[in-house]
Amino acid sequence: MEEKEISQAVVSRLPRYFRYLGELKDEGIERVSSQELSDIMRVTASQIRQDLNNFGGFGQQGYGYNVGYLYDEIGKILGLHKEHNLIIVGAGHLGQALVNYMNFERRGFMFRGIFDQDTRLHGMQIRELTVQPMQEIEQFVRANNIDIAVLTIPKASAVEVAEQLVSYGIKGFWNFAHVDLHVPDDIQVENVHLSDSLMKLSYNLASHSGLTKLSTN
Amino acid sequence: MEEKEISQAVVSRLPRYFRYLGELKDEGIERVSSQELSDIMRVTASQIRQDLNNFGGFGQQGYGYNVGYLYDEIGKILGLHKEHNLIIVGAGHLGQALVNYMNFERRGFMFRGIFDQDTRLHGMQIRELTVQPMQEIEQFVRANNIDIAVLTIPKASAVEVAEQLVSYGIKGFWNFAHVDLHVPDDIQVENVHLSDSLMKLSYNLASHSGLTKLSTN
Repeated sequence: MEEKEISQAVVSRLPRYFRYLGELKDEGIERVSSQELSDIMRVTASQIRQDLNNFGGFGQQGYGYNVGYLYDEIGKILGLHKEHNLIIVGAGHLGQALVNYMNFERRGFMFRGIFDQDTRLHGMQIRELTVQPMQEIEQFVRANNIDIAVLTIPKASAVEVAEQLVSYGIKGFWNFAHVDLHVPDDIQVENVHLSDSLMKLSYNLASHSGLTKLSTN
Repeated sequence: MEEKEISQAVVSRLPRYFRYLGELKDEGIERVSSQELSDIMRVTASQIRQDLNNFGGFGQQGYGYNVGYLYDEIGKILGLHKEHNLIIVGAGHLGQALVNYMNFERRGFMFRGIFDQDTRLHGMQIRELTVQPMQEIEQFVRANNIDIAVLTIPKASAVEVAEQLVSYGIKGFWNFAHVDLHVPDDIQVENVHLSDSLMKLSYNLASHSGLTKLSTN
């Protein structure tokens, strides 16, 4: 694949294409036109063509897209052909919920270990994982080729823990702590700030209720 | 407050301002310049001035921003001065984790009920809530002035359940199901698609690893 500049806006839409194509594939559908894809995804056909053109000519005039091929190609672009080894830092309710959600593993995101500083949780079994003390992280990360750390710890400790994890070789963070991490530029961070998301919902509810008269674009 | 057009991009940044101002407030800091705010938030001072100007003149030349006042005003803009009544549909690991996360209630998002179709979960206690059967939802939503439904159910049932909930009077969805809901335009939906988020992280890891040569803007 040749070098290209892909905007984060396009990148953000790729998982949604991947999801819809996966569903078509599961239904046994072999080809789809950009107009059909447009109807089910509720975005314009021209947006679809434009997005997918970023990655070369997947579509053929008069034929449309080959579902299985496009699905596989987008999967490769998203890096899903490669397995990732993850640890979870923070074995509270959210950390446990993530380990128990099997769908991530179907996509190659393999949870290899879970850690917590709370001694009462040590030894607890969550599916096939055993909660380990924080002191074990460094050796574990180095020994098991861990590339992603999932942070489900309080924000007070997240920044410091992230810095340590970078020094152990972690390349990416899936950060649920409600704080911005400070990591070098070559380290990738994807934030899931649940409170922010709920506040956006609250804003949109308020601005459409007629109580406050703000309206959105 | 007068009528204004606020872009969703600005709206998306408001919770982050709110978070940083809350931290300054907790530290007892009473005023902050846009330059200081810029340094800690790592966005440009001009971006901050521009964003906050959407909501009127919070800042004063030579003084900066009054932290407490700005915090309160952004809270109001976000609709946080008003309590929301929420139900959770789906009492699995994720639903339980959300109920157990107390910080949402501090912001006025009150979990009033939790429902599941799995009879084995009925009667289970999660903090002060008891898991109820799905058949109870309609009466509960109408009787308890519920405005937000949190969907932590599999995607197969989410679309249909959302349609029913709209007919019961639900105004907003916090949707964790990995599917796009089809609801009327006056109903607000905030999606948390965890798999999509993880795929974005995977893309950014792949595009920076030098293995694939895609690079991001």
